[in-house]
Amino acid sequence: MPSPVDFWFEFASTYSYLAASRVERLAHAAGVVVVWRPFLLGPIFGAQGWNDSPFNIYPVKGRYMWRDMERSCARYAIPFRRPSTFPRNGLLAARIVIAAKDAGWVPTFVRNVYRANFGDDQEISEPTVLAALLRDVGANPDALLADAASPDVKEHLRAQTEQAQRLGIFGAPSFVVRDELFWGNDRLDDALAYAREGG
Amino acid sequence: MPSPVDFWFEFASTYSYLAASRVERLAHAAGVVVVWRPFLLGPIFGAQGWNDSPFNIYPVKGRYMWRDMERSCARYAIPFRRPSTFPRNGLLAARIVIAAKDAGWVPTFVRNVYRANFGDDQEISEPTVLAALLRDVGANPDALLADAASPDVKEHLRAQTEQAQRLGIFGAPSFVVRDELFWGNDRLDDALAYAREGG
Repeated sequence: MPSPVDFWFEFASTYSYLAASRVERLAHAAGVVVVWRPFLLGPIFGAQGWNDSPFNIYPVKGRYMWRDMERSCARYAIPFRRPSTFPRNGLLAARIVIAAKDAGWVPTFVRNVYRANFGDDQEISEPTVLAALLRDVGANPDALLADAASPDVKEHLRAQTEQAQRLGIFGAPSFVVRDELFWGNDRLDDALAYAREGG
Repeated sequence: MPSPVDFWFEFASTYSYLAASRVERLAHAAGVVVVWRPFLLGPIFGAQGWNDSPFNIYPVKGRYMWRDMERSCARYAIPFRRPSTFPRNGLLAARIVIAAKDAGWVPTFVRNVYRANFGDDQEISEPTVLAALLRDVGANPDALLADAASPDVKEHLRAQTEQAQRLGIFGAPSFVVRDELFWGNDRLDDALAYAREGG
């Protein structure tokens, strides 16, 4: 019996875009269930003394990352346009995913938010942008934006981010399978192989 | 006509151990020539404000790295024992590789130094340890340790590290193929595929 894969993602994260585009298809092929776990890198980076993306703090690494993203998106055949703002605030989008609970449209919505950010240079912190993306997947924008602003949802996302920290997560995307943490889009295949072993 | 792959490595670097164990065999299979390029991460990290390995500065990331190394070494079937000292100073070993020029034993020596550090917990900054590893590959330890201490070799390594910095290298292992930089053991296959395309 395969284990589920907890897919920990942050909407501001470039490499989470790659993983979000691939995880559902690859997990399905492996017979593995994906649990979608939005969280915020801000508090986790803050604990390491960073108040910005490390790709901005360390520009040499940032330059490499953008070129690597360009190549990776070409390989995976997903759209890429370097966003005019980076990182974008993924807080509201993450709260919407929490508010959506296990709605069937979540995986498509998540992918579409990433594509809006990294493929179409849209400002994904804007409620109007997210409302349009919710409509695209047949969800009710007014209800979800209201839910996303509720104290319960806010607290849930905060608790989930604290859980990420307790799990030793320090970047995104991360995958947790049973007792093992895998970091980065480059470890998705390993995470799925470990999940298939069950245990 | 395939392009050569410049393999940039630092003896203190854990993920360079993985790449050094794989690069020759994989490059040979791809018909690609490997140029072995030792350099020092110290000055490059220093320029980013770090005076230690980021895996020590950010312990959460360090914990993950050691577990990831353990898993990766198991997958590649290479020995792993977490070294009692990290990072170890790879300066002398790097100078020996420079002094050796294109000697046929260089790839084996490099792999053996990494295995001594990360498989056998040996202090690879010690001349006696390196002398034994040189004897193992049939090289003359006295001559090489003397050459390694020469002003020419010291200057060559310094210049090579500056070249790494100019190429936008910020970590190890890195691979440079024509105009493209690939960072990390996880990008070795991509680097070789790009080299095979020639151009």
